[in-house]
Amino acid sequence: MKSLREHEKILPPAEIERRSFEIIEQELPHTLDPLQAPVIKRVIHTTADFSYVDSLCFSQGVIESARQAIREGSSIITDTNMVKAGINGERLSVYGGKVHCFMADEDVAVQARARGITRAAVSMEKSAMMGENYIYAIGNAPTALFRLYDLIAEEKVFPRLIIGVPVGFVHVVEAKELIMQAPVPYIVARGRKGGSNVAAAICNALLYGME
Amino acid sequence: MKSLREHEKILPPAEIERRSFEIIEQELPHTLDPLQAPVIKRVIHTTADFSYVDSLCFSQGVIESARQAIREGSSIITDTNMVKAGINGERLSVYGGKVHCFMADEDVAVQARARGITRAAVSMEKSAMMGENYIYAIGNAPTALFRLYDLIAEEKVFPRLIIGVPVGFVHVVEAKELIMQAPVPYIVARGRKGGSNVAAAICNALLYGME
Repeated sequence: MKSLREHEKILPPAEIERRSFEIIEQELPHTLDPLQAPVIKRVIHTTADFSYVDSLCFSQGVIESARQAIREGSSIITDTNMVKAGINGERLSVYGGKVHCFMADEDVAVQARARGITRAAVSMEKSAMMGENYIYAIGNAPTALFRLYDLIAEEKVFPRLIIGVPVGFVHVVEAKELIMQAPVPYIVARGRKGGSNVAAAICNALLYGME
Repeated sequence: MKSLREHEKILPPAEIERRSFEIIEQELPHTLDPLQAPVIKRVIHTTADFSYVDSLCFSQGVIESARQAIREGSSIITDTNMVKAGINGERLSVYGGKVHCFMADEDVAVQARARGITRAAVSMEKSAMMGENYIYAIGNAPTALFRLYDLIAEEKVFPRLIIGVPVGFVHVVEAKELIMQAPVPYIVARGRKGGSNVAAAICNALLYGME
């Protein structure tokens, strides 16, 4: 066994984060758009996966408009309790926003079972009945994106931002391509990769970059 | 815009999962150990990242001993509320176990600040005072693994399993190599990659594979 002394050189928490971002910057394959850079770098910080440098897609002006939405008190709807747990809710609440996840709600489960659709799709419908224009952070369910696409077309939701980063092998790639055609601001991880951790990291990067 | 009809061919939830695992099996670069396979495949399902096929390391007999621990009512200690949110707590509770995360506890924050160490390290010390032999699911903080290594050497904790899958650029690789030298059962994602989602997926794969 190694000597226990060896890991006494551990850096303090803030220094670990600073040094991590330094390493990420050194290893970036090319320079980034300065507005998008904090989002991309925080996703890499969360995944250790540099493929996000090229898979993350941003609609025109999305960083500014997303921060404006947060500043105006927008709340965030997520498709998993993991995304909800990962977002810095305290920082969001400074502006008046909250994080909601309807996935474990009894009414959502009942409807999903009755109609043979996902709880994620029903959750999006539930958000449409709340009468607010939300930020959507979707890290898991492509069906949430499909349902949002329809709800936008039907003018039942008016998202301030859609973070479309579900992960997976079935319907995921198509759902992300589709949502980029909707007339709303988006940040999407093209391809199969993404996840709850990625969705939360994007929200936090937007929050941490605000004055 | 695409026709809204196009995504009416969406598969029902159970079918999406079945089909996903089918695709994962088809794309595996080589055959897997049959006991480890469900864990590896669920991690890929959660990340869409096939590099875990070769980065996940298992101590001898860990799958059987981990399931035995769950069967005996072991609880799980996590280093983030995201891991806690991702574990199927209902399934765990069938055997009597619970999921604990001390990261947001006031006493943990106070001690961490006073001593200039991470809350994750203090959380591990807190678990040592609870008088139970836990499963540890570490998806974020290498300092949790460093502290666990010492607590094991000092015979203050006797983990039934350590899931060591923090992600990151500083101390992460070393912390994972170190914990594999401790005399306890482990599942570790070698290298930089991992995360809360990976930690939760490993717990769930262990749970879902139990009779």
